[in-house]
Amino acid sequence: MKKAIKKVSAAIIIIGNEILSGRTQDINLLNLAKWLNELGVSVDEVRIIPDIEKTIINTVNDLKTKFKYVFTTGGIGPTHDDITSKSISKAFNLTYGIHDEAFKILEKYYTPEKFNKGRQKMAMIPDKAELILNPSSGAPGFIVENVYCLPGVPSILKSMLGGMNNKIIGGKKILSTTLSLRTVESEIAQSLEDVQNSFKDVDIGSYPFFQQGKVGVSIVMRSSSKNLILDCETKIKEFVKKKNIQIIQR
Amino acid sequence: MKKAIKKVSAAIIIIGNEILSGRTQDINLLNLAKWLNELGVSVDEVRIIPDIEKTIINTVNDLKTKFKYVFTTGGIGPTHDDITSKSISKAFNLTYGIHDEAFKILEKYYTPEKFNKGRQKMAMIPDKAELILNPSSGAPGFIVENVYCLPGVPSILKSMLGGMNNKIIGGKKILSTTLSLRTVESEIAQSLEDVQNSFKDVDIGSYPFFQQGKVGVSIVMRSSSKNLILDCETKIKEFVKKKNIQIIQR
Repeated sequence: MKKAIKKVSAAIIIIGNEILSGRTQDINLLNLAKWLNELGVSVDEVRIIPDIEKTIINTVNDLKTKFKYVFTTGGIGPTHDDITSKSISKAFNLTYGIHDEAFKILEKYYTPEKFNKGRQKMAMIPDKAELILNPSSGAPGFIVENVYCLPGVPSILKSMLGGMNNKIIGGKKILSTTLSLRTVESEIAQSLEDVQNSFKDVDIGSYPFFQQGKVGVSIVMRSSSKNLILDCETKIKEFVKKKNIQIIQR
Repeated sequence: MKKAIKKVSAAIIIIGNEILSGRTQDINLLNLAKWLNELGVSVDEVRIIPDIEKTIINTVNDLKTKFKYVFTTGGIGPTHDDITSKSISKAFNLTYGIHDEAFKILEKYYTPEKFNKGRQKMAMIPDKAELILNPSSGAPGFIVENVYCLPGVPSILKSMLGGMNNKIIGGKKILSTTLSLRTVESEIAQSLEDVQNSFKDVDIGSYPFFQQGKVGVSIVMRSSSKNLILDCETKIKEFVKKKNIQIIQR
């Protein structure tokens, strides 16, 4: 059994039928996870769910008590299938209506003739929610307690992350090192397990890959301690040398 | 409120720290969802969870009662961090040990000197599990009740799908059509909502995109009835024409 690394945990809820149907490849998880890692927050669960109010409410209520931070992506735009804001309002028993501050931001962003009903819908946010500013397209995200609601369009989401840096209080940053080997997993499985057993505070992952028709294995070592990772890497390199396995660049 | 389309539902559990950390981009969801759509099965929830036994057991036990089919990806290889088979055994109170049929397959696949302890671990599968044959690399997946366990390496997973076609009994296939428009969502939000309200059995999604510096919106219509989709598309094209919006190719 691995000893858990002490950490600050987050969950991500990806809201959108287009991801579940396989029509759209999600890339927000990747961007959110990397940003959170930098802040010392580890993503420990992701749920991808459809645009159904009851499902959104239940998922948010389930995860908000289990994780320090919960992020949602998707469903805060102007169309009928954008139901995240309304669902979050219901999950927290808050009034869903025009949010004055959000309305002012959007009113300033658009010319009066362009500020139509669709765009005004994007100011409908749970009462008292704190806004997350959107430098790309005006329409803000929002925070209710520990739930952070972000848009689904990856470039817009990404542009909003920097502005949230000081709102997230992470733990020790998880560092990682990758060692890629020209071998197959079964050749190193026992030796790797022995190293894992003597480095309980390093999380060692083994990932086979194919590169230009050749197989290989990437060993990923993750820990909040740089020294432990270095010691662990040394131990792995010992058996790698003994087994005459080539270390490769990826 | 949208009326739910009658359907056969599946959930996918993606097991792997490397996906949660943002190190690896999952693409198995996309391949599984497309394959299942073809068979008339709709993916209604995805959970991405870490390589932690208790989490795997709880997630499997939660989802196996809620969905007709559950698929897991990842964690059935030979290394210490591959704990899916053992966890599934515990979830179903089955013995975890050498599975005779799996052992014979692997014994035949490898030369005797290559069939080491690591490779033999891949024959450790819950007692009485039905095997899923693996035409790429020998090591089988397995089925326990309604839970289908597949590997994490995308090319191997993909090669195993065809062999499962006759094990999956889907409902009506969900068809979809996409109409891409040179507009922004807020310009069409109200008209689109009106169409959605008169086509309760078509699931209409609206997805903004950026293409060569220009914004656009893809309208995706999904239903098991081709005629309903065609009628719905006609209605949308009516307001598109009235609003002088350009239809584009993506």
